[in-house]
Amino acid sequence: MIDERIEALRVRMAEAGVDAYLVPTDDFHGSEYVGDYFKCREYITGFTGSAGTAVITRDQAGLWTDGRYFIQAAEQLAGSQVTLYKMGEPGVPTVQEFLEEQLGTGSCLGFDGRAVSTEEAGELSRLMEGKQGSICGGLDLIGEIWTDRPPLPSAAVMELDEKWTGESRASRIARVRASLTEQGADLFVLTSLDDIAWMLNIRGGDIHCCPVVLSYLVMSADEILLFVNEKSFPDKVRHALEVDGVRLLPYHAVYEYVSGISAGKKLLLSRNKANSRLTSLIPDGVTVLDRENPTLRFKAVKTLTEVENERAAHIKDGVALTKFIYWLKKNVGKISMTELGAEEKLYELRSAQENFMGNSFDPIISYGPHAAIVHYSATPQTDVPIEPKGLLLADTGGQYLEGTTDVTRTIVMGPVTDEEKLYFTAVLRGTLSLAAAKFRYGASGLNLDYLARGPLWALGKDFNHGTGHGVGYFLNVHEGPNSFHWKKTPTRRADTVFEEGMITSDEPGYYVEGAFGIRHENLLVCVKDQETECGQFMRFEHLTMAPFDLDAVVPEQMTAPERELLNAYHAQVYEKLSPSLDEEERQWLREATRKI
Amino acid sequence: MIDERIEALRVRMAEAGVDAYLVPTDDFHGSEYVGDYFKCREYITGFTGSAGTAVITRDQAGLWTDGRYFIQAAEQLAGSQVTLYKMGEPGVPTVQEFLEEQLGTGSCLGFDGRAVSTEEAGELSRLMEGKQGSICGGLDLIGEIWTDRPPLPSAAVMELDEKWTGESRASRIARVRASLTEQGADLFVLTSLDDIAWMLNIRGGDIHCCPVVLSYLVMSADEILLFVNEKSFPDKVRHALEVDGVRLLPYHAVYEYVSGISAGKKLLLSRNKANSRLTSLIPDGVTVLDRENPTLRFKAVKTLTEVENERAAHIKDGVALTKFIYWLKKNVGKISMTELGAEEKLYELRSAQENFMGNSFDPIISYGPHAAIVHYSATPQTDVPIEPKGLLLADTGGQYLEGTTDVTRTIVMGPVTDEEKLYFTAVLRGTLSLAAAKFRYGASGLNLDYLARGPLWALGKDFNHGTGHGVGYFLNVHEGPNSFHWKKTPTRRADTVFEEGMITSDEPGYYVEGAFGIRHENLLVCVKDQETECGQFMRFEHLTMAPFDLDAVVPEQMTAPERELLNAYHAQVYEKLSPSLDEEERQWLREATRKI
Repeated sequence: MIDERIEALRVRMAEAGVDAYLVPTDDFHGSEYVGDYFKCREYITGFTGSAGTAVITRDQAGLWTDGRYFIQAAEQLAGSQVTLYKMGEPGVPTVQEFLEEQLGTGSCLGFDGRAVSTEEAGELSRLMEGKQGSICGGLDLIGEIWTDRPPLPSAAVMELDEKWTGESRASRIARVRASLTEQGADLFVLTSLDDIAWMLNIRGGDIHCCPVVLSYLVMSADEILLFVNEKSFPDKVRHALEVDGVRLLPYHAVYEYVSGISAGKKLLLSRNKANSRLTSLIPDGVTVLDRENPTLRFKAVKTLTEVENERAAHIKDGVALTKFIYWLKKNVGKISMTELGAEEKLYELRSAQENFMGNSFDPIISYGPHAAIVHYSATPQTDVPIEPKGLLLADTGGQYLEGTTDVTRTIVMGPVTDEEKLYFTAVLRGTLSLAAAKFRYGASGLNLDYLARGPLWALGKDFNHGTGHGVGYFLNVHEGPNSFHWKKTPTRRADTVFEEGMITSDEPGYYVEGAFGIRHENLLVCVKDQETECGQFMRFEHLTMAPFDLDAVVPEQMTAPERELLNAYHAQVYEKLSPSLDEEERQWLREATRKI
Repeated sequence: MIDERIEALRVRMAEAGVDAYLVPTDDFHGSEYVGDYFKCREYITGFTGSAGTAVITRDQAGLWTDGRYFIQAAEQLAGSQVTLYKMGEPGVPTVQEFLEEQLGTGSCLGFDGRAVSTEEAGELSRLMEGKQGSICGGLDLIGEIWTDRPPLPSAAVMELDEKWTGESRASRIARVRASLTEQGADLFVLTSLDDIAWMLNIRGGDIHCCPVVLSYLVMSADEILLFVNEKSFPDKVRHALEVDGVRLLPYHAVYEYVSGISAGKKLLLSRNKANSRLTSLIPDGVTVLDRENPTLRFKAVKTLTEVENERAAHIKDGVALTKFIYWLKKNVGKISMTELGAEEKLYELRSAQENFMGNSFDPIISYGPHAAIVHYSATPQTDVPIEPKGLLLADTGGQYLEGTTDVTRTIVMGPVTDEEKLYFTAVLRGTLSLAAAKFRYGASGLNLDYLARGPLWALGKDFNHGTGHGVGYFLNVHEGPNSFHWKKTPTRRADTVFEEGMITSDEPGYYVEGAFGIRHENLLVCVKDQETECGQFMRFEHLTMAPFDLDAVVPEQMTAPERELLNAYHAQVYEKLSPSLDEEERQWLREATRKI
């Protein structure tokens, strides 16, 4: 079947004069998850993983994916003509190297520019120029052959009441518009789905785990055009939007709109956020102000209402998680229990909480050696029983009307080694120290990251991921620009100054391949501390409320102040969660949050 | 007399068609201290402070200086027509605002471009363009009227033997030349005196406290031209330089040389280091590669020999400082003692050490409230008796053939308050924690600064200076690019990655105006720690060896690991210094370095 699709594609390629066709994984907004409508790469290769790129030439077909998916991809590609290119393995060409090698002088490389970032399209363009060739990003050849393509998602859009957000749509629009005026822009084109949902106080279900609405937005001085699947909008929501000057237009019509912007206009647009089709259609004569979307920082700084709601969401989430941990510990070795089964159990417990809207990301419930695979997500193929020994890592989160949670606990299922305890304690010291930072206003994740890594670095160890990311309000679990990391990169701006109201995860870890994995994650909200003659001081408060497993903590490896931090946190956990637990759970939590 | 000089200047200004003449403090190399030859601002105003700018117009004369010098400047300007402009005071115009206000359309602003940075000249040029006026940086009008101007300094130049530097001149030249080739440069113009001294393994005495040689250097593929006061060069040194392809030319001839560079050449030059006269003379058609001087990073990474020598220098320096502290504590209240007297005593003790070559900067010996003035340097006017109470801050350093030292100790002269002890301890915790950092290769001062500030930030306090700067090898006590700070600025690149062999000061402090000041400073050398599967780890080692005053340490305010750091450091201090002390001093040091 795959081979038939590839042959059908090659017919279209020949008609379009294209020598190679590139099929990436992205949707048209660079979203973290991709809806079925956008799964062109899966359609043309059969590979269902969350990352990968396919390239079809007149006589070859290849799929590039990373180490997480080597086994799965090999299985899914078997029997088709698609060759698996294992990214990062020695001797395996990258996509660019493959194109460089396979394409002759004057070739044309085609792709759907809506699914390719402006930056990546630029690189492809330079590659083809080197061959006196060209790119063609205006195609959707998979769309042409995909007869039973799923429709655009059309989950019903809801308004998020001001009691949840603390700020009206009109106020948010006014703030963004003021920023446009300040920057001298006539128009603002916004393609980031979470920014659009934030500004309009709407939520949807178009993207797995992310309550956003598939859309593009164009703001001018007097109106807002929202390009959407109009079927998703109940009349009431449509009307409410119209009252605030928001007019709905068909989703795909944005491209025609952008092509028609009059010369002389000043257009605010974040090039690295917008897809390459969109940016390529901007007419000559339009001045592009390539700046950060003003919505990015507005959205990152939560309102007081949002912060208070988040506190409530985290208590509910902590109740569910604590019940889960208790259930695990009580039943392990007694009833049959697997990673997937535990995942279901936790979902059931979260679902019992008021205003629970779903997972905020695909849960990571990884037992034993699986926990060392940072991006592990159990499947029926990989699922293993949870036994009364070792460590279980649970990195999960929920969406609530009161906000988004993201929490990791590493749970002791039975006997653990001294090595596991050593690193469990070291990582926990890092989590607690970072959360306890008090700092001058102006400090960033670059300045504070050492607090989380220091205990591991002292042991000659480290973890190969960021220490923390920004988190949305009943929105994407990963949002910028705030983060904790010791290195700044173009995509990870760890030099972002922490503002009051920013929510950031604090999640150091340690992983030994084939053995175990440890991560402790709390969400922190930045608040103002005292202002003195030396300046304004800031600190964090824990949002996440759930016990850290004392069964793997070695108190002697902590300083007295570190033990006090843990004890104070645990006292708070008990106080906030115990009223919502049954007596048995409460007894257990009292012991689980005892002073050390 | 000052007024006569100003009138004479005005005559020259009229002849040169200049409406205002700006006289900065800098020499032609942006040096930290300035030789007598360069003291034009002092000549024209009578003000002797180390910072300030004079502006003379046809009917006004002003001096701008900062808070450190308000009193001194007022005294020294008294009786002249020069107005004192107190920088930073409300309602006081800046130099630029003054020029903006006073100069009419089409005016000409003159100055000696050799004493003005390229960047500053650019700003002045933009200011004058706004008035359809012009700048003229080719003047030296003070030089024309200064009949008894001191000659160029001509301190004898010495070669620094390879046993001190661990690397021959030929090898250093070859490394720099290789960098030129790599960067595609035909020529390299270097104006930083310490970089020149480093590359050529020469030292001089042309700048107070900085053993550099007044010079400009031009490197091409086959020769090095060194523009100097030839009188400073003994025949032997001149000959040795010639052997390595270095030709001496007159100091001022560099300007003619630069004017004559052929079009088409590629010239490597750090614009923000070179003065504006020099950069303005580069002919059109010469391509300037405006990059960091390659010598900067080469110089910052000390050779193994340099590091070993530095350890020896710091033991000698620590012996002198320990004798000094003992002398202070033993004699305070018994003999007459003042800041200046103490300064002399310490100089005498350092002078007794082998290969001592002088102070590495003007000593800061500040008693009581004086210690809160960060840049305090005692003068006969400010000198006060040291009494058997409170704190004495001593920030001093020496030049040795074995390297440069820079050390601060805050010494308890008698009873101190609980507040003083609290901050003394907090600052010390910061000093020790930063020195004890172990970190992944790639970390910078931005990542580590929190370790020094954390204990103060926790108390809502801070200090208003960097935590540390790079230090030269028997060269400038302040050198780049390594530093500790939580904020990056164009002039303070705290994002410089620490390399093995870099030497950086670690000097947090705390100051209460009118009351007391505390600073603890050690020099640290960066060394490699273990390499593990997680990467290469780095750490620091203390170079400075001298006791921290336990009389103001509150052990209960330190964690157990912090106390261990202090005890381990003190054990090392005792071990290294005690062999060079007399019995009485040794007894005292044993007690002063006791375990807490």
